[in-house]
Amino acid sequence: MAQKPSIPKGTRDFSQAETARRNYIFDTCREVFRLFGYAPIETPAMENLSTLMGKYGEEGDKLLFKIQNSGEKSGEAPERGLRYDLTVPFARYVVQHQSEIVFPFKRFQIQPVWRADRPQKGRYREFWQCDVDVIGSKSLTNELELTQIVENIFGRLGIAVTLKLNNRKILAGIAQTMGTPDKLIDITVAIDKLEKIGTEAVKAELQEKGLPTEAIKTLEPILALSGTNVEKSDKLEKILEKSETGLKGIAEMRQILKMAAELKTTLDIALDLSLARGLNYYTGTIFEVKAKNFEIGSICGGGRYDDLTGIFGMPGVSGVGISFGADRIYDVMTGLDLFPAETTVGTKILFLNLGEAEQTASLKLLAELRKNSVAAEIYPDCGAKIKRQMEWANRKNIPFVAIVGENELARNTITLKNMTSGEQKSLPVLDFINFCLSLCKGIPLTT
Amino acid sequence: MAQKPSIPKGTRDFSQAETARRNYIFDTCREVFRLFGYAPIETPAMENLSTLMGKYGEEGDKLLFKIQNSGEKSGEAPERGLRYDLTVPFARYVVQHQSEIVFPFKRFQIQPVWRADRPQKGRYREFWQCDVDVIGSKSLTNELELTQIVENIFGRLGIAVTLKLNNRKILAGIAQTMGTPDKLIDITVAIDKLEKIGTEAVKAELQEKGLPTEAIKTLEPILALSGTNVEKSDKLEKILEKSETGLKGIAEMRQILKMAAELKTTLDIALDLSLARGLNYYTGTIFEVKAKNFEIGSICGGGRYDDLTGIFGMPGVSGVGISFGADRIYDVMTGLDLFPAETTVGTKILFLNLGEAEQTASLKLLAELRKNSVAAEIYPDCGAKIKRQMEWANRKNIPFVAIVGENELARNTITLKNMTSGEQKSLPVLDFINFCLSLCKGIPLTT
Repeated sequence: MAQKPSIPKGTRDFSQAETARRNYIFDTCREVFRLFGYAPIETPAMENLSTLMGKYGEEGDKLLFKIQNSGEKSGEAPERGLRYDLTVPFARYVVQHQSEIVFPFKRFQIQPVWRADRPQKGRYREFWQCDVDVIGSKSLTNELELTQIVENIFGRLGIAVTLKLNNRKILAGIAQTMGTPDKLIDITVAIDKLEKIGTEAVKAELQEKGLPTEAIKTLEPILALSGTNVEKSDKLEKILEKSETGLKGIAEMRQILKMAAELKTTLDIALDLSLARGLNYYTGTIFEVKAKNFEIGSICGGGRYDDLTGIFGMPGVSGVGISFGADRIYDVMTGLDLFPAETTVGTKILFLNLGEAEQTASLKLLAELRKNSVAAEIYPDCGAKIKRQMEWANRKNIPFVAIVGENELARNTITLKNMTSGEQKSLPVLDFINFCLSLCKGIPLTT
Repeated sequence: MAQKPSIPKGTRDFSQAETARRNYIFDTCREVFRLFGYAPIETPAMENLSTLMGKYGEEGDKLLFKIQNSGEKSGEAPERGLRYDLTVPFARYVVQHQSEIVFPFKRFQIQPVWRADRPQKGRYREFWQCDVDVIGSKSLTNELELTQIVENIFGRLGIAVTLKLNNRKILAGIAQTMGTPDKLIDITVAIDKLEKIGTEAVKAELQEKGLPTEAIKTLEPILALSGTNVEKSDKLEKILEKSETGLKGIAEMRQILKMAAELKTTLDIALDLSLARGLNYYTGTIFEVKAKNFEIGSICGGGRYDDLTGIFGMPGVSGVGISFGADRIYDVMTGLDLFPAETTVGTKILFLNLGEAEQTASLKLLAELRKNSVAAEIYPDCGAKIKRQMEWANRKNIPFVAIVGENELARNTITLKNMTSGEQKSLPVLDFINFCLSLCKGIPLTT
């Protein structure tokens, strides 16, 4: 048992500093979701395999973590697996609890998910999703609201972003206009790579997939679209004039852009036809958020689905949602140094522990401070070396140290030391308490 | 696929109302932990099986959820399992990260754990633990602090409790005094049942375990101890006078009680020799908390361990901690109706959605309110039946509805309806906004 312990590949421990920074992201998401009327639900880490299998494609099935049965059934095929995302459990939840749910149902969910992917830089086997969805409403006001949520969250976090917008109906319209509606998936998969591989490679890929040259030619002006969102919409409207679906997609897009403009959004929204998003359940608007000043994949994405719950026997319920990728957002914020300095500081004041009587006096003061919501503590070991106690305060980034020694006890004062400046002064008890209270205002406790 | 979906036996979905109430408990724990200088860490849901196996006894090994290997290794014995508690992962964490940790290390951890127990009322296969520990300090000030944390948390939650206190050294002293130090485990297991089965049955059990009649006779006055904590300590000190370990345990107990009394604790603390606690890693003080007005097992428990990290090759590091059982605390609070009414209310104001121009005006007001931290929303479907929109507000327990219709737009007013009283009044925009702001103060948003 004496080998140094470790954790499974692709999983992580989070230290106190990391947890504080991660909670800063989660709390920001939570607060904004709540301001928009969303409330959290939670689902179990394990789902029945019958709920999960076949929902993420063949590749996904392979990446599910399966749980061995216990007891008598241990030899049989596993019945349970770990949650792979929050969307399928949400669909399952909605169908299972449909009679208790008030539709339109606005929920958010922040929980870990697990995938047996090959671990690599930035890709983990346990990672966190922050999903926000409204289900049971077809109104585009929901799409607008999600753009506002994106604007709010990244605004609060200080990350400059572009929200890419597209619509599955536009993509379907393109496939129709090309005369190859049955090739929709091949087309979207190829267009999805436009930014990465360029126009020529996209065309080559489509040729390989057996699309007629004529069809690919129709696509060219679409791939080359430029200008403002309105200009792009105008041009596209002409190209797709014969596709009812395509025109509907453009009208939806225009409506969202119009509402956002009326609300004077500060968000950089860009109509981007190369945005396709892998998951095939999207049927309308699709979103993706990219950080402007940091090289990383999308940090948030989602879209409108018209039949998410159909797989569980409840067809025709439309919804729309997005998912914030907490781990990537963490990387962006670390890379751009965006975490507020106070995020990792918990305790405001450490009392040195200088002896038995001194400890009793300090503990009484501590009770008073905590009653007033000041996070404070005492060095636990009575009479430990002062140097050691001071070092502990420093390593824990505690900004102030309170010294209650023999002299202070005799005079009913407290010596307060500012650990940043090194400054030290003697205060009457009441002044000390008032100082601690003022210290706490405006410096939020981290979760 | 059309069968109604379900979740694995022993697991639970948490609705928005349940999640809000659960978060009320978690947030209370978090806030108090933080006031005492503890900060959170997180560990992965999966641990290597080598970390988990053999740590919870034979029975525990059987109750571990094991994860099937993926890919090439799928046929081989599983290498990973789900976390069974937070203590062993904490010990693993401390050893693995010992060079980065500042000792004494004060951490809390709130995460789910999984056990393949047979599901039954109040026992789940996925449940939450809230652990708070300090490791790397032998000072009894830590024990005192944990009693203060217990006092604070249950005080805030409104649950009247008794903190039962015992000490493993006292139990060892009893076994020594009985002349059967090697029977310590049999003795503690039997004493543990005192409350449930009574003195005679305990004696019978010990006889069955092969303890000499003489030894059992020595135990009798101990089982019959009565009086205040100090009276019990005094009597016990005489009975255990020849056991150095026993006397040390009594001295520790006295010290904690003395410090708590000096701080004028309002907590009902009771020296209880029948308290043994199952886990064998405890070496000093042991704690257990019982709710006074509700029939349920212990809702919190823990103790001092001198060698938790020894199993991972880092011997002699003493620590002490307790764990709050969130699920049982939830049951107590539900049973005694202790959750504040506002816990489940998120949104303060719903705007009816009466038409396109009305929606635009409402969305602008909403942006203003949210900027000022007022949780508010608009019914998503433009022009839906008013009755339906009102019903939605009612079912979601939204206390106020704002009506911005044609008349209001023309007059630049807002009609505000109190959903509890039914009262309705017309307000100028600024008065409306001020009302919403005042509404929010003092009513904390639930997480």
